[in-house]
Amino acid sequence: MQTASSAISFPERLSEVAARIETTLDRLLSPEAGAGEILRPARLLESMRYATLGGGKRLRPFLVVETARLLGAEGDNVLRAAAAIEMVHCYSLVHDDLPGMDNDDLRRGRPTVHKAFDEATAILAGDGLLTYAFDVIASEPTHADGAVRAALACGLARAAGLGGMAGGQALDLAAETATAPLSAADIQRLQSMKTGALLCFSVEAGAIIAGADAKARAALLAYGRCLGAAFQVADDILDAEGDEAQLGKRAGKDAGRNKATLVAALGLAEAKVIRDRLANDAVSALAETHFSASRELLVEAARFAVARKN
Amino acid sequence: MQTASSAISFPERLSEVAARIETTLDRLLSPEAGAGEILRPARLLESMRYATLGGGKRLRPFLVVETARLLGAEGDNVLRAAAAIEMVHCYSLVHDDLPGMDNDDLRRGRPTVHKAFDEATAILAGDGLLTYAFDVIASEPTHADGAVRAALACGLARAAGLGGMAGGQALDLAAETATAPLSAADIQRLQSMKTGALLCFSVEAGAIIAGADAKARAALLAYGRCLGAAFQVADDILDAEGDEAQLGKRAGKDAGRNKATLVAALGLAEAKVIRDRLANDAVSALAETHFSASRELLVEAARFAVARKN
Repeated sequence: MQTASSAISFPERLSEVAARIETTLDRLLSPEAGAGEILRPARLLESMRYATLGGGKRLRPFLVVETARLLGAEGDNVLRAAAAIEMVHCYSLVHDDLPGMDNDDLRRGRPTVHKAFDEATAILAGDGLLTYAFDVIASEPTHADGAVRAALACGLARAAGLGGMAGGQALDLAAETATAPLSAADIQRLQSMKTGALLCFSVEAGAIIAGADAKARAALLAYGRCLGAAFQVADDILDAEGDEAQLGKRAGKDAGRNKATLVAALGLAEAKVIRDRLANDAVSALAETHFSASRELLVEAARFAVARKN
Repeated sequence: MQTASSAISFPERLSEVAARIETTLDRLLSPEAGAGEILRPARLLESMRYATLGGGKRLRPFLVVETARLLGAEGDNVLRAAAAIEMVHCYSLVHDDLPGMDNDDLRRGRPTVHKAFDEATAILAGDGLLTYAFDVIASEPTHADGAVRAALACGLARAAGLGGMAGGQALDLAAETATAPLSAADIQRLQSMKTGALLCFSVEAGAIIAGADAKARAALLAYGRCLGAAFQVADDILDAEGDEAQLGKRAGKDAGRNKATLVAALGLAEAKVIRDRLANDAVSALAETHFSASRELLVEAARFAVARKN
């Protein structure tokens, strides 16, 4: 499935991007107030740093960076967009973990934000990260062209909002107490909102920044959609099979909560078939474009999405 | 202080703008999914509509619309920007009312969102409104120029985020349990973040959309800053003096919670002096510009900010 050389270069490249994102986030979340800000309150800032720094696979930033690079765009501006998307991902984890939501104590092997700080701070840390992501992605250092910055902000909002991640989370919570189990098709739609939309937008953001043509953008969108779906099925399988120490969060919680997953709806074996088919579809989508020669890192990202251990 | 004719026209104009914003919000929050959205989950959408429709003075939208009009810009695109800012205001009320924050049961004379729905839905309704505001303000129907849309998104994020409203809310909560009372200067900074930043940005957004020149923009910013500060002092005075039925929310709660207010720090009489001085400063800021002849509605908005009963 992979050559020996690429099997080495993908993890190396993933951790290289993760390190650059860490530096970018650290700088963006420094104590100095930015333009238009009055003051950065120390405790709130600390909670936002706790929620974003020192953890995570940084798969979304990786997809932004590698998609942009495939199309010839590299630089600090790409990292800003990638960091903004990662902030939105981190905000969603902080709010999902709240007592009023999933009520989780552990995240990335550490106490969740409302445990390490308090509930009000966790609510505001999430709000602050979500808001700041739009500041970062829409401001001038991210791209010289205002229309590109606006497209990034708009796309991020759509991926994260009512018709994307937040809406998917609402459907997910509703499914826990539904009288009848959801169909596999409904579960896949729910997941395409809850997890898929932001992963797919990560790919799209790279394409927007790099000014991809319509054909490349369509292919990358198809790749992003399949990768996002594959990622969530793999997540459900990890929850069913995985062990807590490796996951850095509680395992087996989906079944206990009556979560709508393809594992619950179709069984583990069928879920794995779907996961692998989606990963292959992601790879196939890339093959149809002119950049097929340099697409290896994105191919491996799709493999990683389903082969990861946490 | 006011002529008889303008005393009639301001409330009329305020309710006219409120009606147009209601229509705009109603349309933006319709069940049909927008571009890039997969599906709008019914219950989450219903909670977002509950949080935004049928209430509120709509002072922020009024400031957007009247500032833009003063500078020659009118139309549905101005209403979109105004509606986006109102969504951010409404999201902040939903989250502030949560059990983990102020734990309020009553807002605008109705049960708060977590009471009318449930806590998870209230968290997501707030998240959804905040996110959707950026979709609306950054998308093409808001302005033909992408740089203007990006500037609006960026300015909204800065007014609402860590260095603005969310940060001010964090300082406000911290002050409740602080060992020493805050100084009047610290309280004014806190309030300039918590309430002032978004009111001031409402004026700024009107100026950005209308393409105000540097001089007009500086004058309008000064007006917005003073009006925002006056509004919050008036709010504190209303809480100390007002009655619950007229306020539509609990009165006298600041003192009970040890809230940092100028009434607590300086007493009611001194707070009123500051409130009136700020309103006058707001009016004076407008006088220094070339649009001083047609500024009457903004002058009255500053008077209204301190003379209102709820």
